[in-house]
Amino acid sequence: ARKYRIAVIPGDGIGKETTPEGLRVLDAAARRFGFELELTHYDWSCDTYAKTGKMMPDDGMERLKESDSIFLGAVGWPGVPDHVSLWGLLIPIRRGFDQYVNLRPCKLMPGARTPLANRGPEDIDFYVVRENTEGEYSSVGGRMFEGTEREFVSQQSILTRTGTDRVLRYAFELAMTRSRKKVTSATKSNGITFTMPYWDERFAAMAKHYPEVTTDQFHIDILCAHFVQHPDWFDVVVGSNLFGDILSDLGPAVAGSIGIAPSANINPEKAHPSMFEPVHGSAPDIAGKWICNPIGQIWSGAMMLEHLGEKAAADAIVTAIEKHLAEGGPRTRDMGGNAGTVDVGKALAEVV
Amino acid sequence: ARKYRIAVIPGDGIGKETTPEGLRVLDAAARRFGFELELTHYDWSCDTYAKTGKMMPDDGMERLKESDSIFLGAVGWPGVPDHVSLWGLLIPIRRGFDQYVNLRPCKLMPGARTPLANRGPEDIDFYVVRENTEGEYSSVGGRMFEGTEREFVSQQSILTRTGTDRVLRYAFELAMTRSRKKVTSATKSNGITFTMPYWDERFAAMAKHYPEVTTDQFHIDILCAHFVQHPDWFDVVVGSNLFGDILSDLGPAVAGSIGIAPSANINPEKAHPSMFEPVHGSAPDIAGKWICNPIGQIWSGAMMLEHLGEKAAADAIVTAIEKHLAEGGPRTRDMGGNAGTVDVGKALAEVV
Ligand SMILES: CC(C)[C@H](C(=O)O)[C@@H](O)C(=O)O
Ligand SMILES: CC(C)[C@H](C(=O)O)[C@@H](O)C(=O)O
Repeated sequence: ARKYRIAVIPGDGIGKETTPEGLRVLDAAARRFGFELELTHYDWSCDTYAKTGKMMPDDGMERLKESDSIFLGAVGWPGVPDHVSLWGLLIPIRRGFDQYVNLRPCKLMPGARTPLANRGPEDIDFYVVRENTEGEYSSVGGRMFEGTEREFVSQQSILTRTGTDRVLRYAFELAMTRSRKKVTSATKSNGITFTMPYWDERFAAMAKHYPEVTTDQFHIDILCAHFVQHPDWFDVVVGSNLFGDILSDLGPAVAGSIGIAPSANINPEKAHPSMFEPVHGSAPDIAGKWICNPIGQIWSGAMMLEHLGEKAAADAIVTAIEKHLAEGGPRTRDMGGNAGTVDVGKALAEVV
Repeated sequence: ARKYRIAVIPGDGIGKETTPEGLRVLDAAARRFGFELELTHYDWSCDTYAKTGKMMPDDGMERLKESDSIFLGAVGWPGVPDHVSLWGLLIPIRRGFDQYVNLRPCKLMPGARTPLANRGPEDIDFYVVRENTEGEYSSVGGRMFEGTEREFVSQQSILTRTGTDRVLRYAFELAMTRSRKKVTSATKSNGITFTMPYWDERFAAMAKHYPEVTTDQFHIDILCAHFVQHPDWFDVVVGSNLFGDILSDLGPAVAGSIGIAPSANINPEKAHPSMFEPVHGSAPDIAGKWICNPIGQIWSGAMMLEHLGEKAAADAIVTAIEKHLAEGGPRTRDMGGNAGTVDVGKALAEVV
């Protein structure tokens, strides 16, 4: 049987409640579609940090390297600053394994409540492809004249040809698998005049290799406005690390799916493991009550299976979620029901 | 009588159609409230560029310096690249006159069509305060290893203490004039780890001076989501040049007012003239037909009067716009009517 090694990191807060449900549904899919998942659990989290002073052990990356994929819950907890929790676990994995694509579906699911008026599932169904290793999130910067009136901080934004081309190529390849075959580029070359014109240049060069793909581009300010006004315009949207970050929260918000949206951190060449995590965080306000919605985690599992090559199983999970939502299966509080986290996981595992 | 010197730059496209209507309403307000406007017209635009190779003459800034305020239409025309048109007229004025605050109201006007479901005028009424001179729009950057596989571009984002503190102070002062007295800061200190933590630090320091003001802060990704999901949370939102740019398009989009929203580029100390312009652009697709909506320009005129100290006249114009929209005055096509630009201007001039 086909076999995949999965590193499971529940992480913090509700991550500990959603990952078991994600695994429950993955297990059901594995049985039905005839493959095996070999799981290794890691309890790395802010708890680990409290005990050891580290979010993950020194050989953490070595250990993760043995896996085909990483299945992550959520990272972060009050009292532990982001530069410790995120930069001690999430960001090193993204960068260390060169997961240079961050992919998020923005899809209006049946029965989900979009904040937009008069929009149905046929209007919102696109992907945001985000560059995940460079750009505005750079490690070059500093502070000068500290503590004086002349004080200033500076941070470089860096776009490399390698880093830019490979994420653009991914976006075009993704568009080629879809019926509309359209790629929209997020830019700001009218204001940010060194990096963004270069992005535009590489985008235009890449587009030449994909004559079947329709392209357009918008400055990030008006693009955000268009997400709200015309979500139906989009098929695949590609952006730099920061622009992609913004659009991949705004997209699910517009679709009313921010609480259930998945995300994938992908190394497309499979030279390193990829990582799959829900968009939501550790939700300290409801953690420990087992009332959180596990659908984001379950949907992330579907993205993981698709990446591993189990497309039929992935589709089955997404279809199960859609049916579940359309037909009024048990719902957690955030979706207007009063089911528990486990109820939803079990219901989905049964129909997958 | 109180007298103000106004430099009028209609600029390109529909700017030539909206500015006369803006002036018509300003003129009516001046009569009613007993002040005088001394106008000087400048035809600087992409046409000028075609004739002279320059967007404005060499002594352009010298001439504008003589005015109390600048009333701008729109800048930009197909065939003239942004780095020529915007960077030859709009940006030099913003920077040269140290218009360090870019202010935009995000207000759901009666009768305007918001894309959001179930939102009324009481839900959306806030300001975006954008830093307008530094940050991500910097002039420090470049390209290396050009034309090779190692090619990269770099651009610095710069936050100075002076530049950061003064725009934060403006936001807090603005909040003090409003009933909710709340300031929200846009950050991304979890990802952009040199500049944004500094922004947070200065925000916290400034907040100490305004104990009556409630504050909160969100990372820009989730903040954009909140604009769509909870526009009622906001009163005054302050952000860096880029974040402010994004939020001040997204805010009016959410309010359904992007076609009629005004914006102000302000030097609060009045050491230099400030500039007032609608958010919309030159709209080449409808320019020359006199069907464009002049409300953004007229509302920009109201912001100009407020800055000049004519608060009663400014309020009268905003109230006139609100009434006009609520009571179904003549509307241009974008608002579902078939009135011309001049019809709307005349109707508003009559009731101001
Ligand atoms: C035209 C462009 C440079 C400008 C900006 O980003 O400042 C515009 O988007 C604006 O908001 O006035
Ligand atoms: C937590 C933060 C650093 C992260 C990011 O901006 O990359 C998050 O917003 C995300 O999108 O995964």
